[in-house]
Amino acid sequence: MARRFVEQLRDGDNLEDVYLVTDKQLRANRNGNPYLLLELRDRTGGIQGRMWNAGDHVARGFDPGDFLYVTGKVQLFQGALQVIVTAVERTEAEKIDFADFLPQTEQSIPKLTDRLRGYLLRLGNPHLRALAECFLMDDAFMRSFTTCPAGVKLHHAYVGGLLEHVVSMMDAADKLLALYPAVDRDLLLMGVFLHDAGKTRELTYGRAFGYSDEGQLVGHIPIAVALLAETAAKVPDLTGEPFPRELMLRIQHMILSHHGELNHGSPKVPMTPEAMLLHLIDLTDTRMHMVLRDLKEDRNNPSAWTPYNHNLGRRIYKGGALGDLFGESGGGYD
Amino acid sequence: MARRFVEQLRDGDNLEDVYLVTDKQLRANRNGNPYLLLELRDRTGGIQGRMWNAGDHVARGFDPGDFLYVTGKVQLFQGALQVIVTAVERTEAEKIDFADFLPQTEQSIPKLTDRLRGYLLRLGNPHLRALAECFLMDDAFMRSFTTCPAGVKLHHAYVGGLLEHVVSMMDAADKLLALYPAVDRDLLLMGVFLHDAGKTRELTYGRAFGYSDEGQLVGHIPIAVALLAETAAKVPDLTGEPFPRELMLRIQHMILSHHGELNHGSPKVPMTPEAMLLHLIDLTDTRMHMVLRDLKEDRNNPSAWTPYNHNLGRRIYKGGALGDLFGESGGGYD
Amino acid sequence: MARRFVEQLRDGDNLEDVYLVTDKQLRANRNGNPYLLLELRDRTGGIQGRMWNAGDHVARGFDPGDFLYVTGKVQLFQGALQVIVTAVERTEAEKIDFADFLPQTEQSIPKLTDRLRGYLLRLGNPHLRALAECFLMDDAFMRSFTTCPAGVKLHHAYVGGLLEHVVSMMDAADKLLALYPAVDRDLLLMGVFLHDAGKTRELTYGRAFGYSDEGQLVGHIPIAVALLAETAAKVPDLTGEPFPRELMLRIQHMILSHHGELNHGSPKVPMTPEAMLLHLIDLTDTRMHMVLRDLKEDRNNPSAWTPYNHNLGRRIYKGGALGDLFGESGGGYD
Amino acid sequence: MARRFVEQLRDGDNLEDVYLVTDKQLRANRNGNPYLLLELRDRTGGIQGRMWNAGDHVARGFDPGDFLYVTGKVQLFQGALQVIVTAVERTEAEKIDFADFLPQTEQSIPKLTDRLRGYLLRLGNPHLRALAECFLMDDAFMRSFTTCPAGVKLHHAYVGGLLEHVVSMMDAADKLLALYPAVDRDLLLMGVFLHDAGKTRELTYGRAFGYSDEGQLVGHIPIAVALLAETAAKVPDLTGEPFPRELMLRIQHMILSHHGELNHGSPKVPMTPEAMLLHLIDLTDTRMHMVLRDLKEDRNNPSAWTPYNHNLGRRIYKGGALGDLFGESGGGYD
Amino acid sequence: MARRFVEQLRDGDNLEDVYLVTDKQLRANRNGNPYLLLELRDRTGGIQGRMWNAGDHVARGFDPGDFLYVTGKVQLFQGALQVIVTAVERTEAEKIDFADFLPQTEQSIPKLTDRLRGYLLRLGNPHLRALAECFLMDDAFMRSFTTCPAGVKLHHAYVGGLLEHVVSMMDAADKLLALYPAVDRDLLLMGVFLHDAGKTRELTYGRAFGYSDEGQLVGHIPIAVALLAETAAKVPDLTGEPFPRELMLRIQHMILSHHGELNHGSPKVPMTPEAMLLHLIDLTDTRMHMVLRDLKEDRNNPSAWTPYNHNLGRRIYKGGALGDLFGESGGGYD
Amino acid sequence: MARRFVEQLRDGDNLEDVYLVTDKQLRANRNGNPYLLLELRDRTGGIQGRMWNAGDHVARGFDPGDFLYVTGKVQLFQGALQVIVTAVERTEAEKIDFADFLPQTEQSIPKLTDRLRGYLLRLGNPHLRALAECFLMDDAFMRSFTTCPAGVKLHHAYVGGLLEHVVSMMDAADKLLALYPAVDRDLLLMGVFLHDAGKTRELTYGRAFGYSDEGQLVGHIPIAVALLAETAAKVPDLTGEPFPRELMLRIQHMILSHHGELNHGSPKVPMTPEAMLLHLIDLTDTRMHMVLRDLKEDRNNPSAWTPYNHNLGRRIYKGGALGDLFGESGGGYD
Repeated sequence: MARRFVEQLRDGDNLEDVYLVTDKQLRANRNGNPYLLLELRDRTGGIQGRMWNAGDHVARGFDPGDFLYVTGKVQLFQGALQVIVTAVERTEAEKIDFADFLPQTEQSIPKLTDRLRGYLLRLGNPHLRALAECFLMDDAFMRSFTTCPAGVKLHHAYVGGLLEHVVSMMDAADKLLALYPAVDRDLLLMGVFLHDAGKTRELTYGRAFGYSDEGQLVGHIPIAVALLAETAAKVPDLTGEPFPRELMLRIQHMILSHHGELNHGSPKVPMTPEAMLLHLIDLTDTRMHMVLRDLKEDRNNPSAWTPYNHNLGRRIYKGGALGDLFGESGGGYD
Repeated sequence: MARRFVEQLRDGDNLEDVYLVTDKQLRANRNGNPYLLLELRDRTGGIQGRMWNAGDHVARGFDPGDFLYVTGKVQLFQGALQVIVTAVERTEAEKIDFADFLPQTEQSIPKLTDRLRGYLLRLGNPHLRALAECFLMDDAFMRSFTTCPAGVKLHHAYVGGLLEHVVSMMDAADKLLALYPAVDRDLLLMGVFLHDAGKTRELTYGRAFGYSDEGQLVGHIPIAVALLAETAAKVPDLTGEPFPRELMLRIQHMILSHHGELNHGSPKVPMTPEAMLLHLIDLTDTRMHMVLRDLKEDRNNPSAWTPYNHNLGRRIYKGGALGDLFGESGGGYD
Repeated sequence: MARRFVEQLRDGDNLEDVYLVTDKQLRANRNGNPYLLLELRDRTGGIQGRMWNAGDHVARGFDPGDFLYVTGKVQLFQGALQVIVTAVERTEAEKIDFADFLPQTEQSIPKLTDRLRGYLLRLGNPHLRALAECFLMDDAFMRSFTTCPAGVKLHHAYVGGLLEHVVSMMDAADKLLALYPAVDRDLLLMGVFLHDAGKTRELTYGRAFGYSDEGQLVGHIPIAVALLAETAAKVPDLTGEPFPRELMLRIQHMILSHHGELNHGSPKVPMTPEAMLLHLIDLTDTRMHMVLRDLKEDRNNPSAWTPYNHNLGRRIYKGGALGDLFGESGGGYD
Repeated sequence: MARRFVEQLRDGDNLEDVYLVTDKQLRANRNGNPYLLLELRDRTGGIQGRMWNAGDHVARGFDPGDFLYVTGKVQLFQGALQVIVTAVERTEAEKIDFADFLPQTEQSIPKLTDRLRGYLLRLGNPHLRALAECFLMDDAFMRSFTTCPAGVKLHHAYVGGLLEHVVSMMDAADKLLALYPAVDRDLLLMGVFLHDAGKTRELTYGRAFGYSDEGQLVGHIPIAVALLAETAAKVPDLTGEPFPRELMLRIQHMILSHHGELNHGSPKVPMTPEAMLLHLIDLTDTRMHMVLRDLKEDRNNPSAWTPYNHNLGRRIYKGGALGDLFGESGGGYD
Repeated sequence: MARRFVEQLRDGDNLEDVYLVTDKQLRANRNGNPYLLLELRDRTGGIQGRMWNAGDHVARGFDPGDFLYVTGKVQLFQGALQVIVTAVERTEAEKIDFADFLPQTEQSIPKLTDRLRGYLLRLGNPHLRALAECFLMDDAFMRSFTTCPAGVKLHHAYVGGLLEHVVSMMDAADKLLALYPAVDRDLLLMGVFLHDAGKTRELTYGRAFGYSDEGQLVGHIPIAVALLAETAAKVPDLTGEPFPRELMLRIQHMILSHHGELNHGSPKVPMTPEAMLLHLIDLTDTRMHMVLRDLKEDRNNPSAWTPYNHNLGRRIYKGGALGDLFGESGGGYD
Repeated sequence: MARRFVEQLRDGDNLEDVYLVTDKQLRANRNGNPYLLLELRDRTGGIQGRMWNAGDHVARGFDPGDFLYVTGKVQLFQGALQVIVTAVERTEAEKIDFADFLPQTEQSIPKLTDRLRGYLLRLGNPHLRALAECFLMDDAFMRSFTTCPAGVKLHHAYVGGLLEHVVSMMDAADKLLALYPAVDRDLLLMGVFLHDAGKTRELTYGRAFGYSDEGQLVGHIPIAVALLAETAAKVPDLTGEPFPRELMLRIQHMILSHHGELNHGSPKVPMTPEAMLLHLIDLTDTRMHMVLRDLKEDRNNPSAWTPYNHNLGRRIYKGGALGDLFGESGGGYD
């Protein structure tokens, strides 16, 4: 039977399906009887659930981030839908189609991965190519790298978002290198590949998007430097040579400086041409993604402006239809 | 006879040549006798000149920015060369080969101009193409636009620098548009063309690079908006239609927001995709120019770091020779 | 029949009057039936309206900013009054007494206009006087200038607010010029007149106060510079002479720098005595208006402090009654 | 015999006159013999003095800030004049005409004092008038108040500068009160009087302008609050009533907040109308003084711009002669 | 009968007890009949009360900050408990056990006071010891000092908090003096004692914690300086000597600079070793108190992170149980 | 023969000794002949050397950072001493007593090292104690750690400075832990030990103090994290257990956040009690070191204030002699 998504639920519906539980609170009602307040989600949205007379024994049976097979009834209460839950059963994540629960890139992850591999396997510098191979051969890393979002909310906040962001930046790097030939292509592409690789451990994205403890305490920049150290240690096995020290410093520096400024969390500012261009390409792809997403998500709203975006600190102008730019309906300017 | 450039002068040389005077001060020596202290320059550097017993009558005969035919003798004084000037004669600018006095782009200005025209004449939007034509037909504007530096010192600080910067940004725009297809190509290219057009009046570059009074009091952003208004007024003659009002707002907005932030002198932050991308391309080309120029100018200095750059707030890492990156001489990393 | 203002509505009233609609949303109720949610306003406040079973055809008949003749019934719902709307009919703005819908200055607009004309027609500099005359003769401009608020919320946020603010600043300028005789009176008064003139196009104030697209994309400072350029072009017809270039630069500079700092949206900081004094008078009038308005609006509240003002970042101290300052009731200080 | 001022000294002059010594260093020359290096000043400038073979016994005989009767000879050395000192003798300050050593206001201090008294003795509030009288009767305070500069360098940096600044602000307050009638006149004038009164102890100005230890460790704002407390304690003797507590808080608040922002050294921001207007009048008088002084001091320099002012962070535009503003010489604008 | 605390109230309870009223609003219901909306509090929390048909005569009988003997009934309304009040009677503060209404330090105030006295009476410098004695003998001051919280919310926000904070800082000072022997112990301890003494008048803490008018207009730093001046005036009676001027400046400076930076409200930055160390100890004790309190208050919440703390701008990591740090349950790191 | 230190050189001395060369420039004199300009240093200061007619062959024989046996003659030139160098010979660093060339801690490095070991070997947590042992057994690391300065100029800028700083912080931590018992002692001491351990590779201190390329490109914070990862990998050999993951995160976090704020180069702010206290102890020790060093170095200068310290942004008050604080010489305050 086809899944009933949150956005399809209506007052009075009977509910029997799997949902991701993202919040769980054990509360007492006014008579002092305990009840469970749940937040149930899938990729189309969230709905509150209340399970009356559900005490500690039920609450201990699962945690936020678990998938629950929920039985209950949808009802309208104080102007919003909620579910009166009658039974919950923890479901193994293996049986779940994650695509039902987390937003996904609209592009093909395998094709994006192929494009990434294409860029990396054509690197001319043998040390860098070997380094890339060591990462590409690390299945656990690649599984994370191709699944991870690029952010929790800010930009590319969907499964495959990190990969999409990195391939988009590689395309940009590929094009801009023609303008700035003094920039080392191999180094820049390696920087693009690794700059956000620490997000594979900074973020949690198995069920809901969030920050891991390591993510909050250490952050993706030092994690990426650690990943680099661990992986570079394997390179001499492939090349028969030690990994060149200056090359290592230059890669570390690209990762450490890619936010561009200290107060954005980079402990160093860019001091090589490759680090500078990496930062600028990252800034460009991130900003353009945010602007174009705001426009796209708001395209059916008749206002000439998108809603206020707190990260950008502004609204984006949508204006009239494209045709208007050619003046058919316009009054002219004078 | 070949010109004797400032960098070729030696102690004891007799001097008879034209120099640009960039500073003039009438001073009294310790006996109360007046003398003239001059700064003489050509594109290779500057040297101080002293003209003893030269009073008001001589000083009034020229102003900073004039070209003087100078007669005198070079001498070493307190560890530096100076010229004891015996005669000066104001020379008409028409007789001067400006190339001797101001640094020039290393690229061909006519070829850059052709590339600019190529981009603009292929614009699809008829209003924007007509606007571009009105600018291209304005000989005075184009003479300034193709001569003007992009800055006094900061970046592209040479004759033709503005043109070189704009064409480089058009190349970048052309390439990045493939990545962000929702961005309007015609608008973006028009923004690239006009964003710094006000520098043609903000800067002085006939003889030495500096700021005009209009430049300091008004600045290149409002000047560009005024140039746009004046030129757009001619477009209806070509198109037979009024210039579309929204299109005008979008171009004005690109100019007004291209520095990206209020505290960088933009009275608006970018709020359209084209304004955002214009800002990012400008930032990229400017930053990369500065980094690569510092590296290039310092390439013969054995230090691994360029001198401190106050605008960037950092030094740039030069490191070892390219070969070193491949580890021949290296010690390896572990 | 006298108008029934929003603040006069009571539970159970029948409603038949014209209101400004400031928001319109087509929603579905829980049965999936569409209804219209409206925000209806006049100068005394706003009230929500719900029109059941009102589909697309009704919603398309008007837009936010229109005046609607509304039939319905007031009822109390969840602790607040709302209107159950049974019919709406779009009304032509011409039939409306705007004074019913927008807050107005408490001063007389004609008298303020006379005082403005008095200042301007007594300017000694013939070019500036002619420039002022060109603005004063522009009926469309003057209609906007004498109607426009000085801000949407911040200060002088009522019809005639811009005019009141400008005349108040002219009074201040008139007085302070006696202290700083080196300041050019004519220039300063022209700066006061024009500094916020761009607000006539930055803001919308026909029905509700808001920002126009031009206001958000361009802003009142560049608009004022454009207004100046357009109007100054007519001056030579009156004076028979070209408008002096330095004078033009000084006026442009006053407009461009009047916010005092780049991060307040001025692309230039004040660099002439007139620009500096204009900025300081503007700051003084704006700040004093905000402080005194907060005190006045809160005078009936017994607290010794006004509510927190987010723009000022503080509360204002009201203290005891004036008599208290003379100590009748006080305990003394020691 | 008329005094020989520093600016009148010439190479070869014999010197016999009193100078203020502002720096004293005992140095050893290359042979290890001690000599004294002195900075000698009067109000026209400073000159270095060297006293050979002058050991500890001479050096101990005076301190920076003392007046010395100096005997010596002026000579030119390495491009600058210096004095070879042969004898120095400490002179009692009582014998000195301070006007020779410190810059003075161009206005009459007695007339300024009369104007100050006029404002204060007409205060309507009996407590404030009595407070003012207590200050005016304090001869030591008034001697300091009418002598003290308003700053070491920043503005009104001359003897009588504080008084001149305060009277100028009282004039401004007097005029602006007409515009903002809700502001309490008496309180505002008292705030103007006392806001910088702490500078009488923050600064040293008996011989040279500088900061006292109390000035650096405590600052003029807390000193003024202390002066207020000490003097207000005497008021009940005059009025027969305790000084009203709220009135005291309002005066303290004006003093404590007059710099307007915490990061300018005010521990409170203005939160009463009087404190706000006091801050704005102070800002206006200070800024206008700096701008107009820069213009005045640079009036004979042909550049269109004053030298860079580090406190203002800008240069000031002087432009053409006043006549030019009327366009006789101008090229017109279009 | 034992007091019924707010946290013990249940739906349906009859209420007859004393509560602190912290807010009072006279409102009209939909029929235009007046009712009173009250906020009733004790140290366990707050609850809203509604008194129907209670007009002006009831409302005038008490003010926020008063204690009311309240009769009424608890009921559940819109998901929260409220009290339907039937009678209120103002109760004299003298009859109240304040411990029921305000949070208290968990330490013994008498013991803390003894420890404070111990530190102060062992000061070696006779002037400082005499100064301390003058404060300790001032019963009104000491009553305030030992009762006052150290902040309204930020840190040590409970009765006795200021005393606890000061004694904790004295312990820290005592220990750190061993590391920095060049710091003057007596001065530092006096600075610790007095740095926040102005909070005794800046805050109100008789009934609820808040700011006095003097606190908002003047602030605790200038108040402490005034307290110091008043008390130091009594010292010569004990010592028979004038209070040394430099010592006074150094104490004033410690108070004035203890926030460390101008934009934190200190009009001076620390410029003596004692002022610097005082600032650092204060910062340390304040920050550690906030961090440890957040951890303590959240210890029963299963999340690994405390709630977001707006003053600190972060959450604090709680992590696993202490045992986990030893790895029994851990997976190891590699 | 006893070494002739730079501060002992006099005009006319013959020079034959080893100096550290810190700068080398090959210049041409006015006749185009090459000469070498050298900066020669030992721990007492620096002096310029000129070697006439010394071409490329001489210049290539050594680099800045080398030790040179210099033969020449001291002479006075333009008011300063210089050395006319007649011969230079590169000397092996092994033969050098580094103590002659670099400033050293005044404490005993072996004793400091013993105290460090004492703290570390008494750690209760077996994983942390084993981690400490792995560092202590690493001779190369410990040689660097006990030699390295804590900064190039800022604080503890001498051989052994890092060790001295760390031991001083351990003493402070040891003492403050008594006040904040909820802080984990073992974790905090480990954080103190490692927080600046990356300076062993960030700085160069074999001959002169400076930054390594790794130091500038990577910085001491990521280097310390890498050192931790490398060394922690050896711990399981000692403990037989994996290193606990949460413990690792907490140590990494202390290192990454110890500068306290992002814009000071910490990519994370402190979010555990141990990280917060570590930051505060580091701040305290660093600030107190700077203040007390300024006072100590300036103790013989009669001014009441130390010279301006650019890092602290202030001067430090020295005031009168300690005795003065007791008022023998004072005038009293009132």
